[in-house]
Amino acid sequence: MIQRSIDIGISELKAKIIGMAGYLEEAVKDSTLAWRNRSREMIDRVNQIEERVNREHVEVDAACLKLLATQQPLATDLRFILSVVKINTDIERMADQAVNIARNTEYYLKHPAFSDLNDLVSMSDRVRLSVRQAIDSFLNEDVQLARAVMEADDKVDELKDKVFHDVLAHMKKTPEDIEQGLNVILIARNLERIGDHATNIAEDVIFTVSGKDIRHTQMRKKGTEIDEK
Amino acid sequence: MIQRSIDIGISELKAKIIGMAGYLEEAVKDSTLAWRNRSREMIDRVNQIEERVNREHVEVDAACLKLLATQQPLATDLRFILSVVKINTDIERMADQAVNIARNTEYYLKHPAFSDLNDLVSMSDRVRLSVRQAIDSFLNEDVQLARAVMEADDKVDELKDKVFHDVLAHMKKTPEDIEQGLNVILIARNLERIGDHATNIAEDVIFTVSGKDIRHTQMRKKGTEIDEK
Repeated sequence: MIQRSIDIGISELKAKIIGMAGYLEEAVKDSTLAWRNRSREMIDRVNQIEERVNREHVEVDAACLKLLATQQPLATDLRFILSVVKINTDIERMADQAVNIARNTEYYLKHPAFSDLNDLVSMSDRVRLSVRQAIDSFLNEDVQLARAVMEADDKVDELKDKVFHDVLAHMKKTPEDIEQGLNVILIARNLERIGDHATNIAEDVIFTVSGKDIRHTQMRKKGTEIDEK
Repeated sequence: MIQRSIDIGISELKAKIIGMAGYLEEAVKDSTLAWRNRSREMIDRVNQIEERVNREHVEVDAACLKLLATQQPLATDLRFILSVVKINTDIERMADQAVNIARNTEYYLKHPAFSDLNDLVSMSDRVRLSVRQAIDSFLNEDVQLARAVMEADDKVDELKDKVFHDVLAHMKKTPEDIEQGLNVILIARNLERIGDHATNIAEDVIFTVSGKDIRHTQMRKKGTEIDEK
């Protein structure tokens, strides 16, 4: 059986996305270890990984452009490539958020450890699972898993609200911890945004597989990627 | 002279982007008026405008897909359409950020007005100019204007740093203003992110016009869209 050139190109794109996703997961994990274990080494690692993700981001974009120009794909293939263009951007921006966490951790490390980071750790665990599942749902065209990713984002948002609420209460009682509290709040925001990008990917999966655009419909709860506090 | 179908399609895409950009500018302006004038009416307007932007976002995506499928564009046309796919997403996410500002303003309005919002007003003025210029640079393929948008983002980041610094200092001196201070900080973050999206659009313009990907190179200063504090 002779493989179509477009199939080879699409396999290559999938392989690249798998590679990028691996680096991204590493970056999110390391950025969590940075504040959890107060580790400067992890901050450096996150920055290194992000540079790598950036290089691959440019390569994937170029590969998509080339496939569109040389293969003139239709229907499913075309939708797949357009999804890669978008998911590529989401992965790159999630890596940016891991770098943001690393930067906020630099400030965080200037102050004593915050007493209770359990909810932040839970947020990180959940967000990393969502990232993994979002990429898997994309690779396996698994609409059910994509829907699970979208639903799981509610819990992440709840945890973020709880972190905001608890840290604010602590800041009021203990004004000398105001700066440290803000660092924790900003890290919670970064994690929430990573979760939002995972949701964006899940939406694109459903779009690609079903050819039906579910964004901005009732199914997608209002404000998934945006709720600020 | 007979116009090529692809040219008609591209003109239609441009017109749609102009329309969306108009709504977006309105949303950013109204979200600023909301906290500046303590206006609940403006909060409602922002939410209405965002729903409209969301509907157009879906339409533009569908139009791009259709053009790619039916016209199989090449070279400049292909790069243009891929840029529209990305810019469409940036516009939609900027509108999300305007909604975030409106939501943070809902909390802001529960507390007395913050004493000094001049830097926040400056941020809003600059960001709205950047949004306008980014869209103009795209419509007119104006690389020079696109570069100006990228450079202007430094000033927005500086202002955000100043807001963070000043508000933190105020919170420490006046712990009863902690919640209100956090609202101001989050609005500054929202404005910064709108500026980052304008920068993303400017990068895409340079990519489309020159066919050269400048993202993640020296030219693009590190952390444009990401610096958290």
